[in-house]
Amino acid sequence: MKTSLDKFFNPKSVAVVGASTTPGKLGYVAVENLIRLGYPGKIFPVNPKANEIQGLKAYPNVKDIPEPVDVGLVLVPAEAVVGVVKDLAEKGVKHTVIIAGGFSEVDEKGAKMQQEIVEIGRKYGMRIIGPNTTGIVSIPGRFSTTFFKVDYNPGSAAYIAQTGNFASITFRWIVTRENFGISRIIGLGNKCDVDDADALEYLESDPHTKVIAMYIEGLKDGRRFVEVAKRVSKKKPILALKSGRTPAGSKAAMSHTASLAADDAILDAALKQAGVIRVNNYMDLVNYTKAFVFQQPPKGNKVGVITPSGGLGVISADACQLLGLDLANLSEKTLERFRKASPPFIRVGNPYDIWPSVTYIGVDEAYKVGIEALFEDENVDAIIAGFQFTEGFELKDHRFISEASRKHPDKPIIAYASSDWVLVEKMRAILEKENIPVYYSPEEAAQALAVMYRYSKIRGEAD
Amino acid sequence: MKTSLDKFFNPKSVAVVGASTTPGKLGYVAVENLIRLGYPGKIFPVNPKANEIQGLKAYPNVKDIPEPVDVGLVLVPAEAVVGVVKDLAEKGVKHTVIIAGGFSEVDEKGAKMQQEIVEIGRKYGMRIIGPNTTGIVSIPGRFSTTFFKVDYNPGSAAYIAQTGNFASITFRWIVTRENFGISRIIGLGNKCDVDDADALEYLESDPHTKVIAMYIEGLKDGRRFVEVAKRVSKKKPILALKSGRTPAGSKAAMSHTASLAADDAILDAALKQAGVIRVNNYMDLVNYTKAFVFQQPPKGNKVGVITPSGGLGVISADACQLLGLDLANLSEKTLERFRKASPPFIRVGNPYDIWPSVTYIGVDEAYKVGIEALFEDENVDAIIAGFQFTEGFELKDHRFISEASRKHPDKPIIAYASSDWVLVEKMRAILEKENIPVYYSPEEAAQALAVMYRYSKIRGEAD
Repeated sequence: MKTSLDKFFNPKSVAVVGASTTPGKLGYVAVENLIRLGYPGKIFPVNPKANEIQGLKAYPNVKDIPEPVDVGLVLVPAEAVVGVVKDLAEKGVKHTVIIAGGFSEVDEKGAKMQQEIVEIGRKYGMRIIGPNTTGIVSIPGRFSTTFFKVDYNPGSAAYIAQTGNFASITFRWIVTRENFGISRIIGLGNKCDVDDADALEYLESDPHTKVIAMYIEGLKDGRRFVEVAKRVSKKKPILALKSGRTPAGSKAAMSHTASLAADDAILDAALKQAGVIRVNNYMDLVNYTKAFVFQQPPKGNKVGVITPSGGLGVISADACQLLGLDLANLSEKTLERFRKASPPFIRVGNPYDIWPSVTYIGVDEAYKVGIEALFEDENVDAIIAGFQFTEGFELKDHRFISEASRKHPDKPIIAYASSDWVLVEKMRAILEKENIPVYYSPEEAAQALAVMYRYSKIRGEAD
Repeated sequence: MKTSLDKFFNPKSVAVVGASTTPGKLGYVAVENLIRLGYPGKIFPVNPKANEIQGLKAYPNVKDIPEPVDVGLVLVPAEAVVGVVKDLAEKGVKHTVIIAGGFSEVDEKGAKMQQEIVEIGRKYGMRIIGPNTTGIVSIPGRFSTTFFKVDYNPGSAAYIAQTGNFASITFRWIVTRENFGISRIIGLGNKCDVDDADALEYLESDPHTKVIAMYIEGLKDGRRFVEVAKRVSKKKPILALKSGRTPAGSKAAMSHTASLAADDAILDAALKQAGVIRVNNYMDLVNYTKAFVFQQPPKGNKVGVITPSGGLGVISADACQLLGLDLANLSEKTLERFRKASPPFIRVGNPYDIWPSVTYIGVDEAYKVGIEALFEDENVDAIIAGFQFTEGFELKDHRFISEASRKHPDKPIIAYASSDWVLVEKMRAILEKENIPVYYSPEEAAQALAVMYRYSKIRGEAD
């Protein structure tokens, strides 16, 4: 039984080896992040040339720290890492994060240094994350080891990223653009010890994490990954973007994280077997995560579609069918409600072109009738609601949507909105704060829903 | 030889039949748009119950208008349309736009009315757009027939949309979110007379239009469409989103614009033969149009890739290869320039992970070296440049990008940016004003470039 990873996420103390007095430097930002996050544990900067760093007493060596250290954060250049790891091990530190690159991803010499680190870890029972990464962000633990700026942005999405800048870019995007928050980020880098399966096992029982997103360049122990992911995916959705799909991509991955090319078809089959939902595009990883954060997966594939234009209705119908979703056969009761809300000559159906109703009884009332009717229709498992936000056609009262959604938690509702950008963004912020995910096109909405439906099948909750 | 469509776009006068005194009504907004656009011709509102509409003298009937009328804009309900069209024909109007729905897309009775309209048109040599549409927006002519709000937003992208709300939503999105403008919009509706081929022929020789985007639900005369598109696509790129790809979509299209389902595979082959680039997603139609507006298609498929993170580099390499683009074999000279700009131990290649260089010589200088080297490398046909905009890593001087791009107009550069949303949007606005298209992910950038490369092949300018 290997040592648990829990201390990486909730350490009582951290030694920052290579802490810096120069603003902007990695070793400065790492400490700054801990202070900004309000990290409740003890921070021990280690730097032989400083007495104090950001108001904290600094130590020349980890061995000079007079108290126990839970996590060793190693920010020194590659050549100095082996020595520092040895010091940490001798100090009794059981959890170490190594940031520097310059190991197995670079050359033979680097690979050899990495091997030495692995051996120290084994000998002392020390778990190691990295090298060549940004390590950990633990929002509930108010802890981070990274050198990119971390804001406190609590939420239920975790992600495991092979690499540092990728983790950073994605985190900044989520913090600044998305209306959901993060539980944990685990940047694995070269995976000299802690790997994807370990990270998944930790997140499996993490009460703060509801959905897991992964960026993978290579898997070191495919069999164990499948075994662990198979179990975890029954409890929490796992979304994975696996790159290195082509010869060109594999070559780039090799020089990036020393990831060996695996036959993409074999890997694809393994992910399927493991219940992992493979994602093909970078943005989709964020977009699908959002759907799982806000809504429950559907119990079936029968979709009720509201469209603000006939054309987008046709596009929605195509998107659903291409993705294995069916347009629900709406009940006569629902159709009658649509008819009453629409001008006399209008033929209603699924997709429900709501625009005649909007011009007839107003935006709010039209959508209220449409959305409530679909939620109450037994033939409907999920809803795609399209909006056209333009001057004069904003929603004034939007709460009926989240109220209806809360009444029917088993029926996900996915919205998309287009037309006037500023209004779309305003409504996206409002609706997503009420757990209604908003995309920009019917295809994106249908894709998110199709992925959720696939997850229901993985859990055995839908056929 | 049919009457030219030119007058639809540059009429000297328009009769607005069904003009309204009530703000917000279709017949009100249509007139309001003409005034807002600064339409230089004469506007004759027609309404038997009003003397004046928005400061313009109103007439009870088109026949009462004492001057010639170039365009008749018909905003009355379906039942009244046949009578109005007859009046317009007798008045000598040769160009009519019919907005109302309720014709062949609804029932037999509607189809019969539509047939009557067609016969009047034939008898009097009158060209008709619609019914069931929003008609025309002609930015250079400062003219529109639509009931959605139109702003003056000049540019070189035209689009032909089968339907009204679709045209409206897309137009509002472009006006409010995109940094390119519009030349003409043609909403065809039920296509009782003017169809896709006619619209293409008009745009073929329109000096204001550089790229043509289309939304198609059905083609009435496939053979003629292919014949015309084949010719036009040699001069200007044609992008087409064709919906009704699935049985569910076809059914929705039938009830929307009475478009008959065509076998999608046959249609796909026809579009290929016609040199039309088929687009599969709604947002892609806008995204690809942007690339063609800002940049020239590449002469080959060898791409130089700059990436702000190793992970996004791997993803970029995959995206290129999956889309038929190759990573360029960079010249030794280029690699040497990269090496000089990077810390000593860094291995450089294509994709070029620019982050070590950014931390070494600063963002501006790193990107200047990277982008200029790729532009000057004879092995490179096109550039994908990825940016990570975060605090402290904004571009201060961005002009070197557009300057290098102008020096090498045959080599398109496509950018993408991620990280801090506000900074990304700020830089997108700045760069796109300088004709550098900016997307949010490497895949979107590669897709846009792949589509441009396909167009080079259609024109016979690349193998």
